[in-house]
Amino acid sequence: MRPSSSPSDSPGPGLFDGVLAAGPVRAATTDLAWLRAMLDVEAALTRAGGAPPEIVEEVAAACRVERYDVAALGAAAATAGNPVVPLARALRAAVSPAAARHVHRGATSQDILDTAAMLVARDALGLIIADLTAAAEAAARLAGAHRDTPVAARTLLQQALPTTFGLVAAGWLTALDGVVDRLAGVRDTRLAVQLGGAAGTLAAFDSPSIVERLAAELDLPAPDLSWHTDRTRVADLAGALGTACGIVGKVAGDVVLFAQTEVGEVVEGAPGGSSSLPHKQNPVAAVSARACAAQAPGLAGTLLASMGHEHQRAAGAWHAEWAPFTGLLRSTGSAAHWLARCLAHLRVDPGRMRANLDATGGALLAERIGAALAPKVGATEAHDLVRAAVASGRPLAEALAAHFDQAELDALLDPASYLGAAPALTDRALKRHGERP
Amino acid sequence: MRPSSSPSDSPGPGLFDGVLAAGPVRAATTDLAWLRAMLDVEAALTRAGGAPPEIVEEVAAACRVERYDVAALGAAAATAGNPVVPLARALRAAVSPAAARHVHRGATSQDILDTAAMLVARDALGLIIADLTAAAEAAARLAGAHRDTPVAARTLLQQALPTTFGLVAAGWLTALDGVVDRLAGVRDTRLAVQLGGAAGTLAAFDSPSIVERLAAELDLPAPDLSWHTDRTRVADLAGALGTACGIVGKVAGDVVLFAQTEVGEVVEGAPGGSSSLPHKQNPVAAVSARACAAQAPGLAGTLLASMGHEHQRAAGAWHAEWAPFTGLLRSTGSAAHWLARCLAHLRVDPGRMRANLDATGGALLAERIGAALAPKVGATEAHDLVRAAVASGRPLAEALAAHFDQAELDALLDPASYLGAAPALTDRALKRHGERP
Amino acid sequence: MRPSSSPSDSPGPGLFDGVLAAGPVRAATTDLAWLRAMLDVEAALTRAGGAPPEIVEEVAAACRVERYDVAALGAAAATAGNPVVPLARALRAAVSPAAARHVHRGATSQDILDTAAMLVARDALGLIIADLTAAAEAAARLAGAHRDTPVAARTLLQQALPTTFGLVAAGWLTALDGVVDRLAGVRDTRLAVQLGGAAGTLAAFDSPSIVERLAAELDLPAPDLSWHTDRTRVADLAGALGTACGIVGKVAGDVVLFAQTEVGEVVEGAPGGSSSLPHKQNPVAAVSARACAAQAPGLAGTLLASMGHEHQRAAGAWHAEWAPFTGLLRSTGSAAHWLARCLAHLRVDPGRMRANLDATGGALLAERIGAALAPKVGATEAHDLVRAAVASGRPLAEALAAHFDQAELDALLDPASYLGAAPALTDRALKRHGERP
Amino acid sequence: MRPSSSPSDSPGPGLFDGVLAAGPVRAATTDLAWLRAMLDVEAALTRAGGAPPEIVEEVAAACRVERYDVAALGAAAATAGNPVVPLARALRAAVSPAAARHVHRGATSQDILDTAAMLVARDALGLIIADLTAAAEAAARLAGAHRDTPVAARTLLQQALPTTFGLVAAGWLTALDGVVDRLAGVRDTRLAVQLGGAAGTLAAFDSPSIVERLAAELDLPAPDLSWHTDRTRVADLAGALGTACGIVGKVAGDVVLFAQTEVGEVVEGAPGGSSSLPHKQNPVAAVSARACAAQAPGLAGTLLASMGHEHQRAAGAWHAEWAPFTGLLRSTGSAAHWLARCLAHLRVDPGRMRANLDATGGALLAERIGAALAPKVGATEAHDLVRAAVASGRPLAEALAAHFDQAELDALLDPASYLGAAPALTDRALKRHGERP
Repeated sequence: MRPSSSPSDSPGPGLFDGVLAAGPVRAATTDLAWLRAMLDVEAALTRAGGAPPEIVEEVAAACRVERYDVAALGAAAATAGNPVVPLARALRAAVSPAAARHVHRGATSQDILDTAAMLVARDALGLIIADLTAAAEAAARLAGAHRDTPVAARTLLQQALPTTFGLVAAGWLTALDGVVDRLAGVRDTRLAVQLGGAAGTLAAFDSPSIVERLAAELDLPAPDLSWHTDRTRVADLAGALGTACGIVGKVAGDVVLFAQTEVGEVVEGAPGGSSSLPHKQNPVAAVSARACAAQAPGLAGTLLASMGHEHQRAAGAWHAEWAPFTGLLRSTGSAAHWLARCLAHLRVDPGRMRANLDATGGALLAERIGAALAPKVGATEAHDLVRAAVASGRPLAEALAAHFDQAELDALLDPASYLGAAPALTDRALKRHGERP
Repeated sequence: MRPSSSPSDSPGPGLFDGVLAAGPVRAATTDLAWLRAMLDVEAALTRAGGAPPEIVEEVAAACRVERYDVAALGAAAATAGNPVVPLARALRAAVSPAAARHVHRGATSQDILDTAAMLVARDALGLIIADLTAAAEAAARLAGAHRDTPVAARTLLQQALPTTFGLVAAGWLTALDGVVDRLAGVRDTRLAVQLGGAAGTLAAFDSPSIVERLAAELDLPAPDLSWHTDRTRVADLAGALGTACGIVGKVAGDVVLFAQTEVGEVVEGAPGGSSSLPHKQNPVAAVSARACAAQAPGLAGTLLASMGHEHQRAAGAWHAEWAPFTGLLRSTGSAAHWLARCLAHLRVDPGRMRANLDATGGALLAERIGAALAPKVGATEAHDLVRAAVASGRPLAEALAAHFDQAELDALLDPASYLGAAPALTDRALKRHGERP
Repeated sequence: MRPSSSPSDSPGPGLFDGVLAAGPVRAATTDLAWLRAMLDVEAALTRAGGAPPEIVEEVAAACRVERYDVAALGAAAATAGNPVVPLARALRAAVSPAAARHVHRGATSQDILDTAAMLVARDALGLIIADLTAAAEAAARLAGAHRDTPVAARTLLQQALPTTFGLVAAGWLTALDGVVDRLAGVRDTRLAVQLGGAAGTLAAFDSPSIVERLAAELDLPAPDLSWHTDRTRVADLAGALGTACGIVGKVAGDVVLFAQTEVGEVVEGAPGGSSSLPHKQNPVAAVSARACAAQAPGLAGTLLASMGHEHQRAAGAWHAEWAPFTGLLRSTGSAAHWLARCLAHLRVDPGRMRANLDATGGALLAERIGAALAPKVGATEAHDLVRAAVASGRPLAEALAAHFDQAELDALLDPASYLGAAPALTDRALKRHGERP
Repeated sequence: MRPSSSPSDSPGPGLFDGVLAAGPVRAATTDLAWLRAMLDVEAALTRAGGAPPEIVEEVAAACRVERYDVAALGAAAATAGNPVVPLARALRAAVSPAAARHVHRGATSQDILDTAAMLVARDALGLIIADLTAAAEAAARLAGAHRDTPVAARTLLQQALPTTFGLVAAGWLTALDGVVDRLAGVRDTRLAVQLGGAAGTLAAFDSPSIVERLAAELDLPAPDLSWHTDRTRVADLAGALGTACGIVGKVAGDVVLFAQTEVGEVVEGAPGGSSSLPHKQNPVAAVSARACAAQAPGLAGTLLASMGHEHQRAAGAWHAEWAPFTGLLRSTGSAAHWLARCLAHLRVDPGRMRANLDATGGALLAERIGAALAPKVGATEAHDLVRAAVASGRPLAEALAAHFDQAELDALLDPASYLGAAPALTDRALKRHGERP
């Protein structure tokens, strides 16, 4: 099995990477990481191809990433159509003629690049999963700590009725655990070696078993058929990453809304500053998470739209995958990293939550009042009556005094007593989370 | 369990539906199908809510789709923000006051619509899976029948080296089986009842067990938490449908290329005419399949981009799902239907395949020649020598006569003997297909 | 010139159309509207083709939309690949043999459908522009009425410093006028007749001047070349519609945020109800506008992705345009209609705006305080000092008392006196709006 | 006016840039180019802000890009939320305290970054337009040279009837000229300075005229209002770039199809090799152009989907623009560069075109035959008769001998005499092209 990439030899972040490629996923998706993965595949192929031990060793030694010049390979790729052609040539030139014969033997460029993509994805998925798991753990802590903290449930951004912040966080938790499972499923079952030779027939290899041998070397599954033009693996990855970004965006969006000046129910532990407004307490982590997550639909769409690989190798659709493949891993990893940071240090203000709940004079309990009124006057009329009472602007206790006695009204209008199954559902979500392997 | 939708009561196809909504999926995704599903949910909710048997019966009788006017509900939805509000009102008006109290009780519009969406998806997925399975079966027949039929493998639309049409079809088969598995997985594990009340707390219900009871009525799984703002289920569906369309587009694209006048290796069994060109043998089924499949990246992207449901109900993102949800099911179903029809009647011309293989004077065997030459002159020089020979325009047998004797050349230049593992790989794919449950 | 479509003969709205296809654009984009447009093109073509007057009249009489059955044409389109083939056949059958020879003469299906698309787009754009103009007028009224109404400017959803609601509305106005100009530009310069015959050579026509004659009949420009596979016109339309939706989404999003329970600075004049929460004052128009606008990126993306029409007619990409073409016109028109309704009846609460401004104890003036402090202590230290003061939670007047005298502080901390050029900029925007033709 | 970026100080290409970021656009869109643009804006702002001459000079001297460390700024951006905050801080630290007060004065980060984006876009658009113009020139040469060269027109990838390669190239030319006009229009009318301060009110500036002064310094238009949350400028750019990519993809796709082994009507002048297939003559330029162009729908969709900037600054949507903004400029520029290279060296084979025309035994003239037959037997029967003749597989001359005499048949079946208006239309397109300014 190959060692995971070491971020120490990576070049520094780009100008926008601090925001858009935050966390460890950046180093795992640089050109250097790609080049290392390609060289790992070439070395493994020589070994799997049955070269003599001393040649295997010679080639492996030549497959150290620091021996190659990314910019030169990138420039040469323009002529060849991809960076594997100049890499294979450089690798052959770096070894003895005897060893050169065993380099890239029988393979086509796409075999190397696709398999390298799987290695890059495996590494990046590990990091993404770790950050999403950290975010889920933080959500679990919030859910546990605020199991019974009332907060206004908001639908269409209008206060609707009470819920608990515990259930809000439990919803985040369940969704995050869900996408962790999806990503782990893709990593563990959908990545696979790609090896077929120029046309997928393995004609330049002695035996089809080369595929299994290469797979064993790289600790990747061997597919039934080479998947050079069957891009379901890439599409599955895209779908899972896109879904993960969707959930990150949902949770981060909630944080941004909770953190609004006028709502003030949460604040990020380490909010960011503004170049011109010294007082701003910007929820930078949540905002950055949203920005990263917003890349996903377009990038996933490009990968889906690029599945029409013609015949035995696409006339453009394969090359079209490279940028969104890297970009989607990177954006998702960055989004996950920001969210983990956001939730880990989120400060919750139960007092403000209660104050916001109380600010509407009982309107929030309208559903409950309506339900209590329905047996007395009928469902439709109850709905209309309560609507009129709310519209009047008077406190509900006053507006509906004719229909209930005071004790009934006091009980009906206590928000903390109308939380439904919120605490129980929170417990259920935490229990389910705790049972995860 | 609800009966599956009967297409007989559907309105006729729209002007473009013959192409873009072909096959049974259209009827399963009409407004009528949606309305039926919503009414099924309302009826099941009354039952699950523990209403007395006679009321359950009364409500169920009122939940027959022909009693409601789609256009009136659609118009009324403008005021309410969704069609469930007028539907619940109409349903209450259609029953006795005693029954009306048990209608839509405790539910919110989104509960009904989301659960109905799951029913619509379940029905549509069944039809999509059936058509994709039919396409896979046709691919399997083609793979078996042409296990040993040589055809040119084409990379970047250039003839590259020989393969078999059996392996081509086996590649289609494997990919189609793959997306069938993905869609069946989504249908069987990712659809679920949605029930939470206005805020997901179930506050208006007596017990959280209402969710399990409703789920049992509808034969859908019950989720741990209500998923009103956790849209991973919708996203998973979108990803699987998008992937399926990608594969349909790939296979249909191959057919279109094979069917080109200048290639002529396949022809659709029932090709379509042209309004102005009486001789045209258009591969209408493959072309239509591509057009349907092309809807997917955009629609799936809209669903992914709409995952940011704010707090307890989205201020737009939920409504934004309705059109692409239906559209994606419908496009995928239509794409699958066209592909099944295309492959079922595909006529293959092995003679033309062989003629095309022979047209390049041996250039197609260049990889093999290069490999045979490499031990004699070194890999890089062999590559350059063969390139020069091909570039010369002379037949390879002549251009490389200095390096091989005649018998060697004859053997090296026989395409049918350079098929690699193609037949064996075809057998493997067919075996794997045959083992499916 | 053809009469614009009359909505009276349209079928009723679909189940989701009340939300997703609101306003007059729905009737202008139904199948009936498409069919009418196709028949208008056929009639015009017969006239442009120089048929004798009595035949022109006979064909025109046969081109009345009520004579054709959408569902039958839709079904027949499946065989032919598009609905024009059966329509031309039906039209020929509806007239005398002598007239039949002049029907669809020399044209190909795409000529009819593409030109009909231009007619549909022209009608729909007129309606879209009218609704966006109405929205702009409403924004202008709001800008004028609230030229001097202070409101908190919010960046990253944090209160930042004061602005005016007039400038907010002026920003909406300018953006809406901008997209109106873009759409009018597309309507007036980018729509054009499509006529080329089967291959764009006009080989079946007597003279290329047929294009100009048809263009004159339909009051559309004549293009230099037929644009059957040059889809820049469609793409320009898609870009302009997508941009319009982006602006509608921005404005509607602001309304939703302003209308939040905790902000409460605006309320829609006719907010919508909830099926379970009688008190809810949902900003239904803004929410619906957002939902419609959210369709655009995916649909526009599909149209952009479908520009690769192969050779002289696409093998799928043309058919792939039909659904997003209609869908994008419809979504944009519906979004515009909702926004016009939203803004026309928007109720603004200046008192609540002022209360929200005052709620932060002067933090909103931090930029101004920082600027006043900078000459005294240096820019970086001023920034840090003010940040510390804000972070202390104390009112700024108290926290920074050491650096200013009381009169300075009173002046510096008056929000209404720190509006910068907001009123002047509002005047400029209104003046520019007033100068529009 | 700022000097245009000099590519000499750019870092080398990335691993995939040889394919995906080919040509001069890469250097114009690197982090260094962005940083240079930001510094240009800061320097211009100090000047426009009326700082004393010696301070203007001091700040300008400090605004040299080589003095800043991209990686350090990128890393610091993580805390601040964008790279302008650390850049402004570094710039202030690089000058005297007296000058520091005039640095970034009154501006907000978005002012600097948005205006820098306009500068980057202006430079990149210049390069993109140049390459598209070169491609158009090459298309014009092809159109002129092959004005009368018959080639099969293909619809749905089936030979349909004859056209000329001149008209094919004229179609490319017209489409390319069209997108050049669109891009030039955006560059010349839609780019503009962005300056509004933290909330768009210019409250921290002495006078609104600062905007005009900054605009003059940078040779950019001054907008009526600051456009910090009105993203129509970005969307217009996205639409125009997306459209340009669509046309590049169309033309490149045609080249790939013409270059197929079985068609062989064109070959790229400098086709690329394969790592395993020495004989391959891959149309690398066209394939690469398609791959670059395929990025556009997703990236443009992300920009359109990010238009919903909340209130006075977006909580994520602004940051979300950075990657697709750069990516779309870069992909379009690379696509244009590849296409220019492809067309400039395209070798056309009229002999092969004629051979392909002749290969179908006259079926290509079916439309003409049908038209000639219609007056004799009626349009519908003519259509059916010709269809039957083609389906019979016999040469048309033989199959339809009963209906025409030999001379009629000879004339009707000469492809070169059934080119319609193709040469005249080519002339028209070339004339229109020649009249361009």
